[in-house]
Formats: sequence, structure tokens, C-alpha cells
Amino acid sequence: MFLAMNRFRIARGFEDGFEKVWRERESHLQGVPGFQSFALLKGPQREDHTLYASHSVWASRAAFEAWTESEAFRRAHAQASAPKGTYLGHPELETFEAVLSE
Amino acid sequence: MFLAMNRFRIARGFEDGFEKVWRERESHLQGVPGFQSFALLKGPQREDHTLYASHSVWASRAAFEAWTESEAFRRAHAQASAPKGTYLGHPELETFEAVLSE
Repeated sequence: MFLAMNRFRIARGFEDGFEKVWRERESHLQGVPGFQSFALLKGPQREDHTLYASHSVWASRAAFEAWTESEAFRRAHAQASAPKGTYLGHPELETFEAVLSE
Repeated sequence: MFLAMNRFRIARGFEDGFEKVWRERESHLQGVPGFQSFALLKGPQREDHTLYASHSVWASRAAFEAWTESEAFRRAHAQASAPKGTYLGHPELETFEAVLSE
């Protein structure tokens, strides 16, 4: 199991607009080699933001990396973006590999 | 989908000992109501630590919270701990609920 999580700090009050962009977007993920599952996750609320994370599971790091260089990736990221003021800072990508699972 | 991730900053050089504790531990998770899956994930290496995360998926927040108050939780957490010097700071628990999934 290989997991890619992109962490987004969304300014308080901008959560609905951020979720709307994701709901309306075409992910172009189905059929991508090695793609297993995707979720947009809503995390803890903090003083000035709500943490969100995109959570995608892949067969391997190589499959994830191939997708980031693909036309499907480019198309998915060329769509409408969230309103100005939505993001506190850049998203932070963290990738993980399973050491143990059950 | 409800996800609980506990983030551990493990001092460089202590990774093997930390993983060994997890490998040898009895999780007592099988059969817990609402439990879906568990993984120990190894994340990015940073200057002074490697990020790990325990990643557990539950049917609902209520199922996760009931587990944290259960005898199974107490037993899982009463086992051997990692060597002194392993942890940089306390683990940080983050919980997430799925807004979208595919």
C-alpha cells in the first residue's frame, strides 16, 4: 500500500467553496494504472483554518509517480480553482508506504 | 469512512526499533465493532526525524471513540514501548471524515 496525502489548510468560512470545487471536478482517476481509491477528507478545525487532505491509495510509489506525469493528472488539475482567500499557504504533500497492515 | 491517524516523529536511527515494537505487538483490533483496517505507515524523512503514522479506518467516529474507551484499547497500549530517545515529542492524533470518495 502506497498512500499520497496532500494537506490543505483552508481558511475558516471557505470550507464550502473548497468542497464544491472537489465535488464538481472530474478526477480522471478511474482506469489509471495502479490507482486504488481516493477520498477527500475533512480533518480537525484549528484556530484560523480547517485541515483537509486528499487521500489516494496506489499499488506502488511508481504508479503514483507515473500518474503525476500523465495527461490524466494534467487534465484533473487544469479545472476551476477555489475562490481567492481559500488557502492558507501551499498544500503539503506527504507520501507513505505501509510497513504493517491488518 | 472515518480515519484516525496518529503521527509519530521518530529520531533518525531509531526507525528499526520503533517498527519492531509495532510488529511484535498484539493489536487486539480484530472483532472490535466498526473496525475496518489498520496500517502502520512510514512517511517522509526529515532533517532530524522520520514521520510515521498509524492509519486506522472505522465505520464511524463513534466506533473509533468507543474503541478508545475499551478494554481492547487498554490492552493494546499496555505493551512494550520503544527505546528511550525514539520519539521527538508526543504523537499527534488527527481524525478525518470523508467528504467525497471514489
